Amino acid sequence: MEVGFLGLGIMGKAMSMNLLKHGFKVTVWNRTLSKCDELVEHGASVCESPAEVIKKCKYTIAMLSDPCAALSVVFDKGGVLEQICEGKGYIDMSTVDAETSLKINEAITGKGGRFVEGPVSGSKKPAEDGQLIILVAGDKALFEESIPAFDVLGKRSFFLGQVGNGAKMKLIVNMIMGSMMNAFSEGLVLADKSGLSSDTLLDILDLGAMTNPMFKGKGPSMNKSSYPPAFPLKHQQKDMRLALALGDENAVSMPVAAAANEAFKKARSLGLGDLDFSAVIEAVKFSRE
Amino acid sequence: MEVGFLGLGIMGKAMSMNLLKHGFKVTVWNRTLSKCDELVEHGASVCESPAEVIKKCKYTIAMLSDPCAALSVVFDKGGVLEQICEGKGYIDMSTVDAETSLKINEAITGKGGRFVEGPVSGSKKPAEDGQLIILVAGDKALFEESIPAFDVLGKRSFFLGQVGNGAKMKLIVNMIMGSMMNAFSEGLVLADKSGLSSDTLLDILDLGAMTNPMFKGKGPSMNKSSYPPAFPLKHQQKDMRLALALGDENAVSMPVAAAANEAFKKARSLGLGDLDFSAVIEAVKFSRE
Amino acid sequence: MEVGFLGLGIMGKAMSMNLLKHGFKVTVWNRTLSKCDELVEHGASVCESPAEVIKKCKYTIAMLSDPCAALSVVFDKGGVLEQICEGKGYIDMSTVDAETSLKINEAITGKGGRFVEGPVSGSKKPAEDGQLIILVAGDKALFEESIPAFDVLGKRSFFLGQVGNGAKMKLIVNMIMGSMMNAFSEGLVLADKSGLSSDTLLDILDLGAMTNPMFKGKGPSMNKSSYPPAFPLKHQQKDMRLALALGDENAVSMPVAAAANEAFKKARSLGLGDLDFSAVIEAVKFSRE
Amino acid sequence: MEVGFLGLGIMGKAMSMNLLKHGFKVTVWNRTLSKCDELVEHGASVCESPAEVIKKCKYTIAMLSDPCAALSVVFDKGGVLEQICEGKGYIDMSTVDAETSLKINEAITGKGGRFVEGPVSGSKKPAEDGQLIILVAGDKALFEESIPAFDVLGKRSFFLGQVGNGAKMKLIVNMIMGSMMNAFSEGLVLADKSGLSSDTLLDILDLGAMTNPMFKGKGPSMNKSSYPPAFPLKHQQKDMRLALALGDENAVSMPVAAAANEAFKKARSLGLGDLDFSAVIEAVKFSRE
Repeated sequence: MEVGFLGLGIMGKAMSMNLLKHGFKVTVWNRTLSKCDELVEHGASVCESPAEVIKKCKYTIAMLSDPCAALSVVFDKGGVLEQICEGKGYIDMSTVDAETSLKINEAITGKGGRFVEGPVSGSKKPAEDGQLIILVAGDKALFEESIPAFDVLGKRSFFLGQVGNGAKMKLIVNMIMGSMMNAFSEGLVLADKSGLSSDTLLDILDLGAMTNPMFKGKGPSMNKSSYPPAFPLKHQQKDMRLALALGDENAVSMPVAAAANEAFKKARSLGLGDLDFSAVIEAVKFSRE
Repeated sequence: MEVGFLGLGIMGKAMSMNLLKHGFKVTVWNRTLSKCDELVEHGASVCESPAEVIKKCKYTIAMLSDPCAALSVVFDKGGVLEQICEGKGYIDMSTVDAETSLKINEAITGKGGRFVEGPVSGSKKPAEDGQLIILVAGDKALFEESIPAFDVLGKRSFFLGQVGNGAKMKLIVNMIMGSMMNAFSEGLVLADKSGLSSDTLLDILDLGAMTNPMFKGKGPSMNKSSYPPAFPLKHQQKDMRLALALGDENAVSMPVAAAANEAFKKARSLGLGDLDFSAVIEAVKFSRE
Repeated sequence: MEVGFLGLGIMGKAMSMNLLKHGFKVTVWNRTLSKCDELVEHGASVCESPAEVIKKCKYTIAMLSDPCAALSVVFDKGGVLEQICEGKGYIDMSTVDAETSLKINEAITGKGGRFVEGPVSGSKKPAEDGQLIILVAGDKALFEESIPAFDVLGKRSFFLGQVGNGAKMKLIVNMIMGSMMNAFSEGLVLADKSGLSSDTLLDILDLGAMTNPMFKGKGPSMNKSSYPPAFPLKHQQKDMRLALALGDENAVSMPVAAAANEAFKKARSLGLGDLDFSAVIEAVKFSRE
Repeated sequence: MEVGFLGLGIMGKAMSMNLLKHGFKVTVWNRTLSKCDELVEHGASVCESPAEVIKKCKYTIAMLSDPCAALSVVFDKGGVLEQICEGKGYIDMSTVDAETSLKINEAITGKGGRFVEGPVSGSKKPAEDGQLIILVAGDKALFEESIPAFDVLGKRSFFLGQVGNGAKMKLIVNMIMGSMMNAFSEGLVLADKSGLSSDTLLDILDLGAMTNPMFKGKGPSMNKSSYPPAFPLKHQQKDMRLALALGDENAVSMPVAAAANEAFKKARSLGLGDLDFSAVIEAVKFSRE
């Protein structure tokens, strides 16, 4: 199978490398073209613009850093729109809001092309290991034709219906994550202030029905007040806000997520926005007694 | 090793049976003596009062239904206090509040006896399988001498310091559980009301860093609005309230737990107190649109 | 003093009538021109487009129903922009978001005109009585020149600085109002469910340091579950959401407003969005016990 | 009318002085008897024990500092119980919890006496001015016979039914107060951080439907970060906790009060418990940005 690949950041590079390793013919493009070199050593071809990649390949995957980059690659000069046409599929795996996705979808399908959004859950390591979780929405036939690629990139891909649903599902997952992180933080601080060991609490949680990789992975460093940013707190808070806005649209009252969101905002006001989202525990800890 | 065992309810029976199977000599007592028969068939001795058990055994374990029964077995006529004395150890594994535990501790140690509280995390199945988590606090030497028994009864025992700490640690664990259950409920409802499949959300959560036995165990039945009571909602709410009170004593502000507690209260007001605590999702779901 | 007046809805009619009564020369325009008749009987002149009003008058006040109408009156054919120029002042007293205000400001000042926004607090009755509270922001000289008109329209006008600040201040006032209404609702329901009279609670509150016109005005009907819409719940909830978004921008954590917002959302999900915002008490009341 | 009066603290002294001024014959007692001197100068008689006062007077009012003192005056040697009997009435206006009140009620009525609790809303100034609000519960006939005294002591007295209802009503009033104070604090901080003047916000609030003596009295000092303790924050938080507990008993979910309570707890953890309850604004203000 031959695929185009736009965007060779940390994620995109790992993903396109995986495709090459599994026998795909891959044509890459990156804004800074020199980043393509390593891929070429492993057998990739290179094009000088997104439009050229689209022209050459029936299927093109994009993995860009943010909504702005995702739009630019499609709409700018030399962009996807110049060559997209009937028979071609565009698979945008960048993390963008539903609105951006809908805009791209409209433009692509307006030219006769096919489109799916496919945001992923998982960061660098799962990308390298082909263990991403892929949340696909849009053109179902394109999803099905893309499964061989998704099977290489992720441990599982889901088809979620119309464009925008991928973005929404990701927000909901992240909202649960943010509330859980607050529940966990409050428990760790309460243990400590009650004269119990918060390390022992970790051991106890690890043996019970709530044991999960996040508590195991983050707990020990939280107890040491260390928050190296895997997922920055300000991004977590933004996702809480967007998930609450989704609840607002659909008249779903979510008091626990709302309380968690305010805790993340307090943490931001304490200057912790660039640390890992587990730093929200500092907002719980803070006291003068 | 020889141990006494007071209380042969669902938990106590499973636990004393395990001790017998692992070669302990066990002397049992139960308020309704006929419940001792099955244990006797497996080699247990029987006494007619708690006092007699204490007299006969150096170590006695109690597993009683509630604080009231725990106090009665110690203080009533024929109770533990009549025979407890220097050299004897009393291990109360019932789930009681810190105050009850402290009262029993004072009485036992006042007579020269030794005491630990050892509330457990886990219900019928883990009790049968010897997979309980045991939260011990009080006399450290007694804890250490009791380890052979704890190793049979549970997969892990923790020593947590002074009497009352076992009860407190259990509250904190349950508080985290209650907040997590709310986070989970809000996510499932939001998915559903946003036009996404809440079953797919379960699959996605199951593959990520938040995967845990509680979500896996409760999620499918929650999506079917089925809440067979494993841990009744009213007890979960009581534990949230007590954990918040512990936070109050120690000036720990816990807005997420407080919001979760109010959701459990709303669920109680909807008549769901006797269902499983996962029925809190009904308070999130409820609407007329 | 001569002023133009655009928009003769419930508010605009009462306001322009007040100006006439106090000796202002008023030139009016309304989309449905027939609505101007009553004003003409009281001495007003009429123009056939906003542009003509601007051409004729040095100062023009607008009171339009929503952001869409406010933009249309400025930017459409025959609109304000066609005639606005140096020396002329445009005073938009419609309730619009900061973004809309900024857009209008940019267009007006781009043509050399001067602009203030002046959203009001108060509805029909205060408009008729000249008892509005006017929150002005933008061109300070224009504000000062407009004071004679503001003195007729309101009991007090405030100058709040740059354009957008009027809208922001109004959101903050409404946010406090929404949280207070929730505090009040929870107290009334708690009294009732605790076997106390919620009418007596009203009497007690009325005698103490918290007595305020809102509790006095809304309390008796809330106790009768009657919510004739003075300020619709869905608009109150929208203002809570926007105030929380303002807090988000400025990293202000507001857990009480967030909890109140979720209560309003729950009320919306119960189908109460078109009733008065005091209907939020129904979300507190709701139970099956 | 002749009345006994037990307790001459700040409140009790002002209240008994008012009774004297209005022509009541008053017999006083205080633990430190020298405090009676000033009252004697104004015509009061003195007794050496609560029992003697009861013996002498048909009606006796008590105004004691806390539940402990209230119990001691009744149950200790020389206490009320020694002389209370049929035909005599005991009116306890101290602020105590419902449980203490019920205990006293049981003892008094057990001896044939009659009892009402009558906690007051208002502090030193209203006590001196006879402007208290009196929340009476218990024996209705005794309430009615006491109205001449209540009319001197307060601007209004309410009969609320069975003993305990006075204490409950006071908790509910204070709960509304605590939530309102949080709503107000969040608004003031949001104004300030959004670049608006929080003093102007006070002016605007003062003109609208939410204007109330508390905002007017506390607002200016809050904007100056000054919190001289009129009602200490730790007592306000305790009342929030007790009101939430009352909600718990009656299955009333109160998410806004719960969020406010956590804010007061955060303020306590910042070392502000002894300042005025308006210091909760510091918990909202706190940030490092």
